[in-house]
Amino acid sequence: MSTIVDFTISPLDKGESLSPYVARVVSIIKTSGLSYKLGPMGTSIEGEMDEIMSLIQRCFEELKRDCGRILMTIKADYRKDFSGRIKTKVSAVEDKI
Amino acid sequence: MSTIVDFTISPLDKGESLSPYVARVVSIIKTSGLSYKLGPMGTSIEGEMDEIMSLIQRCFEELKRDCGRILMTIKADYRKDFSGRIKTKVSAVEDKI
Amino acid sequence: MSTIVDFTISPLDKGESLSPYVARVVSIIKTSGLSYKLGPMGTSIEGEMDEIMSLIQRCFEELKRDCGRILMTIKADYRKDFSGRIKTKVSAVEDKI
Amino acid sequence: MSTIVDFTISPLDKGESLSPYVARVVSIIKTSGLSYKLGPMGTSIEGEMDEIMSLIQRCFEELKRDCGRILMTIKADYRKDFSGRIKTKVSAVEDKI
Repeated sequence: MSTIVDFTISPLDKGESLSPYVARVVSIIKTSGLSYKLGPMGTSIEGEMDEIMSLIQRCFEELKRDCGRILMTIKADYRKDFSGRIKTKVSAVEDKI
Repeated sequence: MSTIVDFTISPLDKGESLSPYVARVVSIIKTSGLSYKLGPMGTSIEGEMDEIMSLIQRCFEELKRDCGRILMTIKADYRKDFSGRIKTKVSAVEDKI
Repeated sequence: MSTIVDFTISPLDKGESLSPYVARVVSIIKTSGLSYKLGPMGTSIEGEMDEIMSLIQRCFEELKRDCGRILMTIKADYRKDFSGRIKTKVSAVEDKI
Repeated sequence: MSTIVDFTISPLDKGESLSPYVARVVSIIKTSGLSYKLGPMGTSIEGEMDEIMSLIQRCFEELKRDCGRILMTIKADYRKDFSGRIKTKVSAVEDKI
């Protein structure tokens, strides 16, 4: 539970509307059992680095079935001995404003 | 209102705990009047591209006062003739799951 | 000269081949007078933060003329009292391998 | 060979100078046998998605040994039926300027 990742995936050959593709990916994330949170610009996922990377790999394989070009962006934040940060990171900031 | 940006800013010379620095930045975003949403891995901001870029510039100037090295990541998503997407992008996906 | 930015810009409504769009953007970067370096996954630009941000804004306005949806990613690395890093950052690593 | 990734890794608890840490990571990339190219803002790596992800995992494990907080950014570009793009992507743009 020591890593949070922000993850986006965008087919480039399917035109402007991406939500059907994002929905296929979010269904996979949902069934993974990892904590996640949808945001307007990406999905945050918390777990161990190897679990998250293997989940992202499965999301990519799903879209590769019918997409000819795919962009992914991943930002990962690992912090030793911390967990549950998908909730506490936002409140740690809000408490200081 | 046609652009959403995901924005993160991290001083590299202040150790592991970044929330005091992030809080200073979020205070500036809050007083800008633009729509925003805090997330565990970044802050989403909606507006016109030039407004958002000038706001990010002000956030950077604030941390530059006492930070010797700063990383920023920005993901911008412009869509012509769309607005209010800071809310609708998530529900467009949720409706399809 | 204290900031380096890695910059990518991708229209989402123009299909798989993006090099004609990237070329229009690189022409603008070229005439800016700032140091830059093309890479396979983005263009590095060195300068002051405000110069670079205003250049990126001009690149965006150019593609906005005919693109309905545009993604941009920006990674910025500011380091006080350093410059010329578009060359020295790579050699600092190579010297240590 | 259908994917290129831009990869950065930054410890947050080791102060401003990161090149010793980046050098340890680049040594691992070098011995992987995959095509790579160092840039001022990240390292580009070309291969199949699963090979690259497993390599990035090994780079992370190396820094995890002595770093308490680590940020990684990954941008991946998959294109079906293309390869060798670590060289051709730049020349495709340069030919059009």
